[in-house]
Amino acid sequence: MSHRIILLAHGSSDKRWCETFEGLAGPTLKAVPESRVAYMELAEPSLENTVAEGVSAGVDAFTVIPLFLAAGRHLRKDVPAIIESLERAHNVKISLAPPIGENPLLGQAIKDVVVLQLTSTDP
Amino acid sequence: MSHRIILLAHGSSDKRWCETFEGLAGPTLKAVPESRVAYMELAEPSLENTVAEGVSAGVDAFTVIPLFLAAGRHLRKDVPAIIESLERAHNVKISLAPPIGENPLLGQAIKDVVVLQLTSTDP
Repeated sequence: MSHRIILLAHGSSDKRWCETFEGLAGPTLKAVPESRVAYMELAEPSLENTVAEGVSAGVDAFTVIPLFLAAGRHLRKDVPAIIESLERAHNVKISLAPPIGENPLLGQAIKDVVVLQLTSTDP
Repeated sequence: MSHRIILLAHGSSDKRWCETFEGLAGPTLKAVPESRVAYMELAEPSLENTVAEGVSAGVDAFTVIPLFLAAGRHLRKDVPAIIESLERAHNVKISLAPPIGENPLLGQAIKDVVVLQLTSTDP
């Protein structure tokens, strides 16, 4: 049994938006073996293609970790529906983790970023 | 001259979404004096009301720090347009910082969250 992690971002037709997410995902991709970035919509690789590619490589269990700050309609409805359909299509198990923003570590990092920002722009 | 920090989130009609952002902003609100949370749309307090409230309290300079992981259309077009109109309406200076996700600290925090997540859900 092989397991793969999918860092799921919303996606955008703006290449710069995707580049920022690739940067955000960089440390995770480096630290976590068998991890990938995928997009829910508007950009490639899609979640669908990323799962299909994993299945071809022998992966039979995936954990989707949303690179979202909070859960709205996408994470409560759209993504679970996509996941259910992919599980059926490929006969694999796909777990959906809470969005990263629900972990208190993110709030601490935001505080650090804001404090740095203010220090660097003080007149 | 008085200066106020506005942590700007997208906003949602889903109360749970806003509660997650209030949690994310908590450490910053505690650490940074004169900081507030505001929403771009779909939730209160709005950016407009937060600036108006600051102006009433004697604030004449604001820094808007977007609680967004990356800059898309909202941060490239909509928010700058709102800010320009608020600057004119209130005769104040409003600076727009980069989204928090452009700081490498966020990528590190995401890695920490993912590693924790995987450790806690390992079979």
